Amino acid sequence: MAHIDLQNDYPGIRGPMAFRPETAKPLNMLAEALLRAENTLTRGERELIATFVSSLNDCSYCQHAHGSVVQHYLNCDTSYIDKVKADFLNTDLSSKMKALLSIAASVQKGGKAVTPNQIEEARTRGATDREIHDTVLIAAAFCMFNRYVDGLGTWAPENNDFYLERAPRRAKEGYSGYNPRN
Amino acid sequence: MAHIDLQNDYPGIRGPMAFRPETAKPLNMLAEALLRAENTLTRGERELIATFVSSLNDCSYCQHAHGSVVQHYLNCDTSYIDKVKADFLNTDLSSKMKALLSIAASVQKGGKAVTPNQIEEARTRGATDREIHDTVLIAAAFCMFNRYVDGLGTWAPENNDFYLERAPRRAKEGYSGYNPRN
Repeated sequence: MAHIDLQNDYPGIRGPMAFRPETAKPLNMLAEALLRAENTLTRGERELIATFVSSLNDCSYCQHAHGSVVQHYLNCDTSYIDKVKADFLNTDLSSKMKALLSIAASVQKGGKAVTPNQIEEARTRGATDREIHDTVLIAAAFCMFNRYVDGLGTWAPENNDFYLERAPRRAKEGYSGYNPRN
Repeated sequence: MAHIDLQNDYPGIRGPMAFRPETAKPLNMLAEALLRAENTLTRGERELIATFVSSLNDCSYCQHAHGSVVQHYLNCDTSYIDKVKADFLNTDLSSKMKALLSIAASVQKGGKAVTPNQIEEARTRGATDREIHDTVLIAAAFCMFNRYVDGLGTWAPENNDFYLERAPRRAKEGYSGYNPRN
Protein backbone atom coordinates (compact mmCIF):
# COMPACT_ATOMS: atom_id res chain seq x y z
CA MET A 1 0.00 0.00 0.00
CA ALA A 2 1.54 3.29 -1.09
CA HIS A 3 1.56 6.22 1.36
CA ILE A 4 -0.90 8.14 -0.83
CA ASP A 5 -3.84 7.07 -3.01
CA LEU A 6 -2.18 6.68 -6.40
CA GLN A 7 -5.51 5.71 -8.00
CA ASN A 8 -3.88 2.61 -9.45
CA ASP A 9 -2.08 -0.49 -8.21
CA TYR A 10 0.90 -0.58 -10.55
CA PRO A 11 4.14 -1.60 -8.81
CA GLY A 12 7.18 0.57 -8.18
CA ILE A 13 7.67 3.79 -10.11
CA ARG A 14 4.78 2.92 -12.44
CA GLY A 15 2.28 3.87 -9.70
CA PRO A 16 3.36 7.51 -9.19
CA MET A 17 4.16 7.88 -12.90
CA ALA A 18 0.58 6.96 -13.80
CA PHE A 19 -0.67 9.24 -11.00
CA ARG A 20 1.31 12.25 -12.22
CA PRO A 21 2.09 12.05 -15.96
CA GLU A 22 3.25 15.69 -16.03
CA THR A 23 6.35 14.80 -14.03
CA ALA A 24 6.66 11.27 -15.49
CA LYS A 25 7.42 12.74 -18.92
CA PRO A 26 10.69 14.54 -18.08
CA LEU A 27 11.70 11.67 -15.77
CA ASN A 28 11.40 9.23 -18.65
CA MET A 29 13.15 11.60 -21.05
CA LEU A 30 16.02 11.77 -18.57
CA ALA A 31 16.19 7.97 -18.32
CA GLU A 32 16.25 7.74 -22.11
CA ALA A 33 19.04 10.31 -22.45
CA LEU A 34 21.13 8.66 -19.75
CA LEU A 35 20.55 4.97 -20.28
CA ARG A 36 19.75 4.49 -23.96
CA ALA A 37 20.87 7.43 -26.13
CA GLU A 38 24.15 7.33 -28.06
CA ASN A 39 27.07 6.82 -25.71
CA THR A 40 30.53 5.26 -25.54
CA LEU A 41 29.30 3.38 -22.45
CA THR A 42 27.09 0.50 -23.56
CA ARG A 43 23.46 0.33 -22.52
CA GLY A 44 24.32 -2.66 -20.37
CA GLU A 45 27.10 -0.74 -18.60
CA ARG A 46 24.83 2.24 -17.92
CA GLU A 47 21.99 0.04 -16.65
CA LEU A 48 24.54 -1.70 -14.42
CA ILE A 49 25.53 1.62 -12.82
CA ALA A 50 21.81 2.30 -12.24
CA THR A 51 21.29 -1.16 -10.75
CA PHE A 52 24.34 -0.86 -8.48
CA VAL A 53 23.27 2.53 -7.08
CA SER A 54 19.70 1.27 -6.59
CA SER A 55 21.12 -1.63 -4.61
CA LEU A 56 23.17 0.75 -2.43
CA ASN A 57 19.95 2.70 -1.81
CA ASP A 58 18.18 -0.60 -0.98
CA CYS A 59 15.44 0.12 -3.53
CA SER A 60 13.98 -3.28 -4.36
CA TYR A 61 11.90 -2.26 -7.39
CA CYS A 62 14.62 -0.27 -9.18
CA GLN A 63 17.46 -2.71 -8.58
CA HIS A 64 15.43 -5.63 -9.91
CA ALA A 65 13.79 -3.78 -12.80
CA HIS A 66 17.11 -2.39 -14.05
CA GLY A 67 19.09 -5.48 -13.04
CA SER A 68 16.83 -7.51 -15.32
CA VAL A 69 17.54 -5.12 -18.17
CA VAL A 70 21.27 -5.58 -17.52
CA GLN A 71 20.78 -9.35 -17.71
CA HIS A 72 19.02 -8.88 -21.04
CA TYR A 73 21.80 -6.74 -22.50
CA LEU A 74 24.76 -8.66 -21.06
CA ASN A 75 23.16 -12.08 -21.38
CA CYS A 76 24.18 -12.94 -17.84
CA ASP A 77 22.32 -14.59 -14.97
CA THR A 78 21.02 -13.08 -11.74
CA SER A 79 23.98 -14.36 -9.72
CA TYR A 80 26.31 -12.17 -11.77
CA ILE A 81 24.25 -9.08 -10.92
CA ASP A 82 24.28 -10.12 -7.26
CA LYS A 83 28.08 -10.49 -7.39
CA VAL A 84 28.50 -6.97 -8.82
CA LYS A 85 26.27 -5.55 -6.08
CA ALA A 86 28.16 -7.36 -3.32
CA ASP A 87 31.77 -7.15 -4.49
CA PHE A 88 32.24 -5.51 -7.90
CA LEU A 89 36.01 -5.26 -7.52
CA ASN A 90 36.22 -9.06 -7.66
CA THR A 91 34.30 -9.53 -10.89
CA ASP A 92 35.44 -9.68 -14.51
CA LEU A 93 34.27 -6.11 -15.14
CA SER A 94 36.82 -3.92 -16.90
CA SER A 95 39.08 -1.77 -14.73
CA LYS A 96 37.34 1.26 -16.26
CA MET A 97 33.91 0.04 -15.16
CA LYS A 98 35.28 -0.71 -11.69
CA ALA A 99 36.60 2.85 -11.43
CA LEU A 100 33.24 4.24 -12.61
CA LEU A 101 31.29 2.09 -10.13
CA SER A 102 33.58 3.39 -7.38
CA ILE A 103 32.63 6.97 -8.37
CA ALA A 104 28.95 5.98 -8.46
CA ALA A 105 29.22 4.55 -4.93
CA SER A 106 30.61 7.87 -3.70
CA VAL A 107 27.86 9.85 -5.44
CA GLN A 108 25.31 7.64 -3.65
CA LYS A 109 26.78 8.78 -0.31
CA GLY A 110 26.80 12.43 -1.39
CA GLY A 111 28.31 14.60 -4.12
CA LYS A 112 31.21 15.72 -1.96
CA ALA A 113 32.26 12.10 -1.32
CA VAL A 114 33.72 11.91 -4.83
CA THR A 115 37.50 12.39 -4.62
CA PRO A 116 40.03 13.68 -7.17
CA ASN A 117 41.81 10.32 -6.79
CA GLN A 118 38.71 8.46 -7.96
CA ILE A 119 38.47 10.72 -11.02
CA GLU A 120 42.18 10.26 -11.75
CA GLU A 121 41.85 6.48 -11.44
CA ALA A 122 38.90 6.48 -13.87
CA ARG A 123 40.90 8.56 -16.36
CA THR A 124 43.92 6.28 -16.01
CA ARG A 125 41.64 3.33 -16.77
CA GLY A 126 40.48 4.99 -19.97
CA ALA A 127 37.29 6.82 -18.94
CA THR A 128 36.55 10.01 -20.86
CA ASP A 129 35.24 13.18 -19.25
CA ARG A 130 31.83 12.53 -20.73
CA GLU A 131 31.79 8.99 -19.36
CA ILE A 132 32.67 10.33 -15.90
CA HIS A 133 29.98 13.01 -16.27
CA ASP A 134 27.38 10.46 -17.27
CA THR A 135 28.35 8.10 -14.45
CA VAL A 136 27.90 10.89 -11.90
CA LEU A 137 24.54 11.88 -13.37
CA ILE A 138 23.25 8.30 -13.66
CA ALA A 139 24.20 7.70 -10.01
CA ALA A 140 22.62 11.00 -8.95
CA ALA A 141 19.47 10.30 -10.98
CA PHE A 142 18.98 6.94 -9.32
CA CYS A 143 19.35 8.60 -5.92
CA MET A 144 16.26 10.48 -7.11
CA PHE A 145 14.35 7.57 -8.67
CA ASN A 146 15.01 5.34 -5.64
CA ARG A 147 13.77 8.03 -3.22
CA TYR A 148 10.72 8.64 -5.38
CA VAL A 149 9.79 4.95 -5.39
CA ASP A 150 10.42 4.29 -1.68
CA GLY A 151 9.50 7.75 -0.36
CA LEU A 152 5.95 7.14 -1.57
CA GLY A 153 5.93 3.62 -0.13
CA THR A 154 5.18 1.89 -3.44
CA TRP A 155 5.06 -1.90 -3.57
CA ALA A 156 7.46 -4.15 -5.46
CA PRO A 157 6.85 -7.68 -6.77
CA GLU A 158 9.10 -10.10 -4.86
CA ASN A 159 9.54 -12.68 -7.61
CA ASN A 160 12.41 -11.72 -9.91
CA ASP A 161 10.67 -13.45 -12.81
CA PHE A 162 8.26 -10.51 -12.93
CA TYR A 163 11.13 -8.19 -13.82
CA LEU A 164 12.95 -10.65 -16.08
CA GLU A 165 9.84 -11.14 -18.19
CA ARG A 166 9.43 -7.39 -18.73
CA ALA A 167 13.11 -6.63 -19.46
CA PRO A 168 13.24 -7.47 -23.21
CA ARG A 169 10.33 -5.14 -23.91
CA ARG A 170 11.88 -2.33 -21.87
CA ALA A 171 15.16 -2.80 -23.74
CA LYS A 172 13.33 -2.71 -27.06
CA GLU A 173 10.92 0.17 -26.42
CA GLY A 174 13.06 2.35 -24.17
CA TYR A 175 11.90 4.98 -21.74
CA SER A 176 10.95 8.12 -23.64
CA GLY A 177 7.50 6.92 -24.67
CA TYR A 178 7.08 4.83 -21.53
CA ASN A 179 3.49 4.10 -20.54
CA PRO A 180 3.42 3.05 -16.88
CA ARG A 181 0.00 1.44 -17.44
CA ASN A 182 1.43 -1.25 -19.73
CA MET B 1 38.05 23.61 -10.62
CA ALA B 2 35.57 20.92 -11.61
CA HIS B 3 36.71 17.28 -11.56
CA ILE B 4 36.41 17.07 -15.35
CA ASP B 5 37.07 19.57 -18.16
CA LEU B 6 33.62 21.09 -18.65
CA GLN B 7 34.95 23.33 -21.46
CA ASN B 8 33.45 26.34 -19.71
CA ASP B 9 33.76 28.13 -16.38
CA TYR B 10 30.10 28.64 -15.50
CA PRO B 11 29.35 28.09 -11.81
CA GLY B 12 27.29 25.31 -10.28
CA ILE B 13 24.95 23.24 -12.42
CA ARG B 14 25.42 25.64 -15.35
CA GLY B 15 28.86 24.10 -16.04
CA PRO B 16 27.75 20.48 -16.61
CA MET B 17 24.50 21.64 -18.25
CA ALA B 18 26.47 23.58 -20.87
CA PHE B 19 28.83 20.60 -21.24
CA ARG B 20 26.03 18.11 -21.86
CA PRO B 21 22.89 19.80 -23.25
CA GLU B 22 21.30 16.44 -24.09
CA THR B 23 20.81 15.68 -20.40
CA ALA B 24 20.28 19.33 -19.41
CA LYS B 25 17.04 19.44 -21.40
CA PRO B 26 15.06 16.82 -19.42
CA LEU B 27 16.60 18.10 -16.17
CA ASN B 28 15.26 21.57 -16.87
CA MET B 29 11.89 20.21 -17.99
CA LEU B 30 11.68 18.37 -14.68
CA ALA B 31 12.52 21.53 -12.72
CA GLU B 32 9.83 23.42 -14.66
CA ALA B 33 7.18 20.75 -14.02
CA LEU B 34 8.02 20.56 -10.32
CA LEU B 35 8.80 24.14 -9.38
CA ARG B 36 6.81 26.35 -11.74
CA ALA B 37 3.92 24.53 -13.45
CA GLU B 38 0.36 24.82 -12.15
CA ASN B 39 0.15 23.61 -8.56
CA THR B 40 -1.74 24.19 -5.32
CA LEU B 41 1.66 24.69 -3.67
CA THR B 42 2.96 28.16 -4.55
CA ARG B 43 6.18 28.58 -6.49
CA GLY B 44 7.72 30.06 -3.37
CA GLU B 45 6.71 27.02 -1.29
CA ARG B 46 8.13 24.60 -3.85
CA GLU B 47 11.39 26.53 -4.19
CA LEU B 48 11.61 26.52 -0.38
CA ILE B 49 11.41 22.71 -0.29
CA ALA B 50 14.18 22.62 -2.91
CA THR B 51 16.29 25.08 -0.91
CA PHE B 52 15.79 23.20 2.35
CA VAL B 53 16.81 19.83 0.85
CA SER B 54 19.83 21.45 -0.85
CA SER B 55 20.85 22.79 2.54
CA LEU B 56 20.54 19.33 4.11
CA ASN B 57 22.76 18.02 1.31
CA ASP B 58 25.20 20.87 1.98
CA CYS B 59 25.11 21.95 -1.67
CA SER B 60 26.19 25.57 -1.65
CA TYR B 61 25.25 26.45 -5.23
CA CYS B 62 21.73 24.97 -5.17
CA GLN B 63 20.74 26.25 -1.74
CA HIS B 64 21.77 29.81 -2.60
CA ALA B 65 20.44 29.81 -6.16
CA HIS B 66 17.03 28.48 -5.13
CA GLY B 67 17.04 30.32 -1.80
CA SER B 68 17.36 33.56 -3.74
CA VAL B 69 14.37 32.61 -5.87
CA VAL B 70 12.41 31.96 -2.66
CA GLN B 71 13.38 35.43 -1.44
CA HIS B 72 12.11 36.86 -4.71
CA TYR B 73 8.76 35.06 -4.50
CA LEU B 74 8.17 35.49 -0.75
CA ASN B 75 9.71 38.96 -0.54
CA CYS B 76 11.72 37.91 2.51
CA ASP B 77 15.33 38.46 3.49
CA THR B 78 18.20 35.98 3.66
CA SER B 79 17.89 35.60 7.42
CA TYR B 80 14.42 34.12 6.97
CA ILE B 81 15.79 31.45 4.61
CA ASP B 82 18.57 30.73 7.11
CA LYS B 83 15.99 30.32 9.87
CA VAL B 84 13.98 27.81 7.83
CA LYS B 85 17.14 25.82 7.12
CA ALA B 86 18.18 25.78 10.77
CA ASP B 87 14.86 25.38 12.59
CA PHE B 88 11.81 25.38 10.33
CA LEU B 89 9.47 24.20 13.09
CA ASN B 90 10.00 27.54 14.86
CA THR B 91 9.10 29.77 11.96
CA ASP B 92 5.80 31.28 10.84
CA LEU B 93 5.42 28.71 8.08
CA SER B 94 2.00 27.05 7.93
CA SER B 95 1.59 23.75 9.77
CA LYS B 96 1.05 22.14 6.35
CA MET B 97 4.40 23.42 5.08
CA LYS B 98 6.11 22.25 8.27
CA ALA B 99 4.65 18.77 7.77
CA LEU B 100 5.81 18.76 4.13
CA LEU B 101 9.32 19.93 5.06
CA SER B 102 9.46 17.11 7.60
CA ILE B 103 8.66 14.62 4.81
CA ALA B 104 11.29 16.28 2.59
CA ALA B 105 13.90 15.89 5.34
CA SER B 106 13.16 12.17 5.53
CA VAL B 107 13.39 11.78 1.74
CA GLN B 108 16.82 13.43 1.90
CA LYS B 109 17.96 10.65 4.25
CA GLY B 110 16.44 7.95 2.06
CA GLY B 111 13.03 6.96 0.67
CA LYS B 112 12.39 4.43 3.41
CA ALA B 113 12.87 7.08 6.11
CA VAL B 114 9.43 8.52 5.31
CA THR B 115 6.93 7.23 7.88
CA PRO B 116 3.14 6.72 7.72
CA ASN B 117 2.89 9.11 10.68
CA GLN B 118 4.55 11.88 8.67
CA ILE B 119 2.08 11.33 5.82
CA GLU B 120 -0.84 11.30 8.25
CA GLU B 121 0.36 14.53 9.88
CA ALA B 122 0.63 16.23 6.46
CA ARG B 123 -2.91 15.09 5.58
CA THR B 124 -4.23 16.32 8.93
CA ARG B 125 -2.65 19.69 8.22
CA GLY B 126 -4.45 19.90 4.88
CA ALA B 127 -1.95 18.51 2.38
CA THR B 128 -3.45 16.72 -0.61
CA ASP B 129 -2.07 13.50 -2.07
CA ARG B 130 -0.69 15.44 -5.01
CA GLU B 131 1.04 17.92 -2.71
CA ILE B 132 2.62 15.03 -0.79
CA HIS B 133 3.63 13.41 -4.09
CA ASP B 134 5.20 16.61 -5.36
CA THR B 135 7.02 17.22 -2.07
CA VAL B 136 8.57 13.74 -2.23
CA LEU B 137 9.60 14.21 -5.86
CA ILE B 138 10.99 17.73 -5.34
CA ALA B 139 13.05 16.43 -2.40
CA ALA B 140 14.19 13.41 -4.40
CA ALA B 141 15.03 15.57 -7.44
CA PHE B 142 17.22 17.85 -5.38
CA CYS B 143 19.04 14.82 -4.00
CA MET B 144 19.92 14.34 -7.67
CA PHE B 145 20.68 17.96 -8.58
CA ASN B 146 22.85 18.42 -5.46
CA ARG B 147 24.84 15.25 -6.21
CA TYR B 148 25.24 16.30 -9.84
CA VAL B 149 26.61 19.72 -8.84
CA ASP B 150 28.96 18.51 -6.08
CA GLY B 151 29.81 15.09 -7.54
CA LEU B 152 31.48 16.88 -10.46
CA GLY B 153 33.23 19.31 -8.12
CA THR B 154 31.75 22.44 -9.69
CA TRP B 155 32.50 25.84 -8.15
CA ALA B 156 29.99 28.16 -6.49
CA PRO B 157 30.20 31.96 -6.06
CA GLU B 158 30.52 32.74 -2.35
CA ASN B 159 28.79 36.12 -2.39
CA ASN B 160 25.04 35.73 -2.04
CA ASP B 161 24.50 38.89 -4.10
CA PHE B 162 25.46 36.86 -7.19
CA TYR B 163 22.40 34.65 -6.66
CA LEU B 164 20.07 37.43 -5.52
CA GLU B 165 20.79 39.43 -8.66
CA ARG B 166 19.91 36.50 -10.91
CA ALA B 167 16.76 35.39 -9.04
CA PRO B 168 14.20 37.76 -10.63
CA ARG B 169 15.18 36.66 -14.11
CA ARG B 170 14.99 32.98 -13.15
CA ALA B 171 11.56 33.55 -11.63
CA LYS B 172 10.43 35.32 -14.79
CA GLU B 173 11.91 33.02 -17.43
CA GLY B 174 11.62 29.69 -15.65
CA TYR B 175 13.60 26.54 -16.31
CA SER B 176 12.25 24.83 -19.42
CA GLY B 177 14.11 27.03 -21.90
CA TYR B 178 17.03 27.57 -19.54
CA ASN B 179 20.30 28.48 -21.21
CA PRO B 180 23.17 27.78 -18.81
CA ARG B 181 25.41 30.13 -20.81
CA ASN B 182 23.38 33.20 -19.85
